[in-house]
Amino acid sequence: MHHVWPSLVGKDRYTCVGLMSGTSMDGVDAALVSMNASLERPRVELLRFSSAKYPESLRESLADLAAGANVTAEEVAMLATSVAVAFAGAFFDVCRDAKADARAVDFVGSHGQTVAHVPPGSGSPVAATLQIGPPAMIAALTGVTTVGDFRSGDVAIGGQGAPLAPYCDYMLRKSDTANRVILNIGGISNLTYLPAGASRDDVIAFDAGPGNMVVDTLYRALFPRQGDYDEGGARASVGAAQRNVVERMMRHPYFAAAPAKSAGHREFGPPFAWALKTAAESEDASHEDILATAVALTVESIVDAVRRFLPEGGVDEVFVTGGGARNRAMLAGLEGALAPMPVRAIDELGIPAEAKEAVDFAFLAREALLGRPNVLRGVTGASRALVLGTIARGSE
Amino acid sequence: MHHVWPSLVGKDRYTCVGLMSGTSMDGVDAALVSMNASLERPRVELLRFSSAKYPESLRESLADLAAGANVTAEEVAMLATSVAVAFAGAFFDVCRDAKADARAVDFVGSHGQTVAHVPPGSGSPVAATLQIGPPAMIAALTGVTTVGDFRSGDVAIGGQGAPLAPYCDYMLRKSDTANRVILNIGGISNLTYLPAGASRDDVIAFDAGPGNMVVDTLYRALFPRQGDYDEGGARASVGAAQRNVVERMMRHPYFAAAPAKSAGHREFGPPFAWALKTAAESEDASHEDILATAVALTVESIVDAVRRFLPEGGVDEVFVTGGGARNRAMLAGLEGALAPMPVRAIDELGIPAEAKEAVDFAFLAREALLGRPNVLRGVTGASRALVLGTIARGSE
Repeated sequence: MHHVWPSLVGKDRYTCVGLMSGTSMDGVDAALVSMNASLERPRVELLRFSSAKYPESLRESLADLAAGANVTAEEVAMLATSVAVAFAGAFFDVCRDAKADARAVDFVGSHGQTVAHVPPGSGSPVAATLQIGPPAMIAALTGVTTVGDFRSGDVAIGGQGAPLAPYCDYMLRKSDTANRVILNIGGISNLTYLPAGASRDDVIAFDAGPGNMVVDTLYRALFPRQGDYDEGGARASVGAAQRNVVERMMRHPYFAAAPAKSAGHREFGPPFAWALKTAAESEDASHEDILATAVALTVESIVDAVRRFLPEGGVDEVFVTGGGARNRAMLAGLEGALAPMPVRAIDELGIPAEAKEAVDFAFLAREALLGRPNVLRGVTGASRALVLGTIARGSE
Repeated sequence: MHHVWPSLVGKDRYTCVGLMSGTSMDGVDAALVSMNASLERPRVELLRFSSAKYPESLRESLADLAAGANVTAEEVAMLATSVAVAFAGAFFDVCRDAKADARAVDFVGSHGQTVAHVPPGSGSPVAATLQIGPPAMIAALTGVTTVGDFRSGDVAIGGQGAPLAPYCDYMLRKSDTANRVILNIGGISNLTYLPAGASRDDVIAFDAGPGNMVVDTLYRALFPRQGDYDEGGARASVGAAQRNVVERMMRHPYFAAAPAKSAGHREFGPPFAWALKTAAESEDASHEDILATAVALTVESIVDAVRRFLPEGGVDEVFVTGGGARNRAMLAGLEGALAPMPVRAIDELGIPAEAKEAVDFAFLAREALLGRPNVLRGVTGASRALVLGTIARGSE
C-alpha cells in the first residue's frame, strides 16, 4: 500500500463521484459510484446518475472558446471558475438525488471541460491540452478530495492525452471468452478493442472520428429551438443518407491516419459540419437527409476503422455507449453495416450508456489515488505510462 | 501521520525544488532546498539557487497574455505547455548546477505563471485566478511529484488567493522577541507583519501596491536594449522623484482599501505605468526622474501601508526581499522614510532575497504533501483554511 492516498488506507470500499462534460457540452454528468478496493478485480456499481445543463450563457461561452474564439486570460480564468462551480453543483445534485451524505464521499474524479486539445501530430507547434474547472476549486467547493486534469501529463511526454476510457474498459469490461469492442459515441467516437482475456498490451483503442459532434451541430442549425440534439435519432431516421457526400467527407486525412490518434473540435468542429451541409445542400438534400448523411458519416467512419485497424474477423460483439447508443438511426446503421456481429447498448454490461464516462472518471480517480498507472501508453502513444490525474485535497 | 503523502512517510528530511516565476516574468527561479520533516519547527536550507530566462518570444507572449491580449484557448494551452517545459528545464538546471541527482528529489513546488488574477472584490463578475504550467506536465517531464496551482482553491471560497508568503514567513521567520515586517518587493509588493511570538491569528499581511512592476515597465520603455531592469537602482538613484506625481498616483483607490487585498497587472500593469509617465513628463521630468518617481511611489505606498494598517509603533525591524532588496534607491527611500526602524535585506535571515519566493513554494508544497492547511485565512479572506496545492504524482 506504499502509494495509497492517506485517507483511503485501510478502506475496502469507496463511495465516489465522477464528473464529466464532453465536447458536446450537453451538460455536466455526475455519477455516484460505489467501488471496491481490489487492484486486480475492480468492480464498480452505479448508485445514482444525474445530469445538469450548464447555464445557457456559460454553454455558449464555452462553445465559443472551444471553437477558437478570441478571449483574454481573465475570461478563460472566469470560465474555469464557472465550470468548477457547475461541476460542484452537479456533485451536490447527485448526492441529494441519492439522499447520500456529501461529506461521506471519499473522492471525486473530474474530467473538467475540454476547451483545447492539440496533441502531438495535430499540426500544432506545441502539443497541448486544456481542461478547465480546476480540481482545486472543486475540492474547495465540495470539501471532497478531487482528482482532475487527467490529460496534461500524457500530452507532455508525447501522448495523445486520449483516449482514456480504454484503461477503464480493460480493467472493468474485458471478457474471458469474447473479443469485444466498446464503442463510445460521444461528441467524438472512440473505440476500444479488447480481445478475449486481453493483457494490457493487447488493447487497441483510438478515436474513430466524429461521434455526435457533426450530427448535433447540424441538428441545432437545421432545427432551431427544438432541443439540443435529434432525440432518439427521430429526424435522421426519416432522411436518406447521401452516399457520395459521405464518401467525399471520408477523404479527410484523419480517417486514414494510423492510431494512436485523437480528434476533437479542431478536426470535426463547425467548419467540418458546414462542409458536409454545403455538399449535401448542393444535391438538394432535405434537412432530414442532411442529418441522415451526418449519421451515415459517423457510422461509416466507425466501420472503416474496425475494418482498417482491427484484426480481420477478430470482433465478436460491439457494445455502444455515449449519446450514440440512444440514436436509433446510428445503431441501425451500425447493425446493418457490421452484421452479423451483434451491436448492443452498453447497458447490458451494467452501466447505462449515459453514465459510463462519468463512472470511468471516478474509476480513473481511484487509480490515481491508489498510485496505479492509469493509462495504456500503447493507446495514447506516450513515452511511458503515468499515474494521470492531479489531486486536490478536500477537508479530510 | 494520517495525512502524509505516501512516499514521504518515514523520512525525516526532504530534498525538494521550488519553482517560481513572478508577475515581472524576469525568468524561472529554481531553489534546491533541504527541509526537515518537523511540523512545528520546520527549517529550510537553501542548497542551490538558479534562475533561467524564458525564451524571449515566450516571455513576450506571456506578458501580452497577462496584459489582456486576445488569444484562443489553443494558444493558452500551448503557452501552458511552454511554461511547464521552461519550469522543468529550470528544475534540471538547478539539479545539474548542484551536482544533485534529479531522481533523488522528493518533490517540486511550482507556482506556475500567473496570467490572470481577479479575486473577489476586484470588480470581476466571477472571481478567478489562472497560473499556467500544469503540475501534471512538470511531474511528467521531471519524474518528480509536483505540487502546483496553489491559488485556485482559496479564490473559490472567497479568498484573494494571495498573498501566500505570509504562511511561510509565519512558519519559518517569526521572532520570539522582535516585531518583524517581511517586505517582498517583487512585481507587486507584499508585506507580512509578524508580532513577536505571533500566533497564526496575529499575522497581518497584504499586497501594499506595485513593487517593481511600474519601475520595470518604465525602465524598459525609457532605456530600451539596456537590460530588463534598472540594475541596483543606478538610474533611479540619480533622478529626482516628483512628489506631486507620487501624491497624484497615490489616489488610486487600491491604496486606501483595507486588507485583505491583493493586486496584480490589473491594477498596476502598463496603463498605470503610462499614467505615471505621462504625469511626470508633463512636468519636464528626465528619464531618470521618471524612474525615481516610480521608485518613490513604491516606497510611499509601502510606508503608507505600514502607517495605515499596522499597529502604531509596533514594528521593530523590516526585512526586504524580492528584486527590490537589490535596488539601492528603493532601500534608501525606505530607510529614509521609516527611520529609525532598521531596514535590512532578508539575506540576514539566511535565504538570499532572490531565492526566497522559490524556497517558499517548496515549503508550501511540503505542507500540502503533509496535509497541513498552508494558508492564513485571516490574510487571504477565505471562508476557511485549506490545504492549497494540487499534487501530480511523479515516478515513485
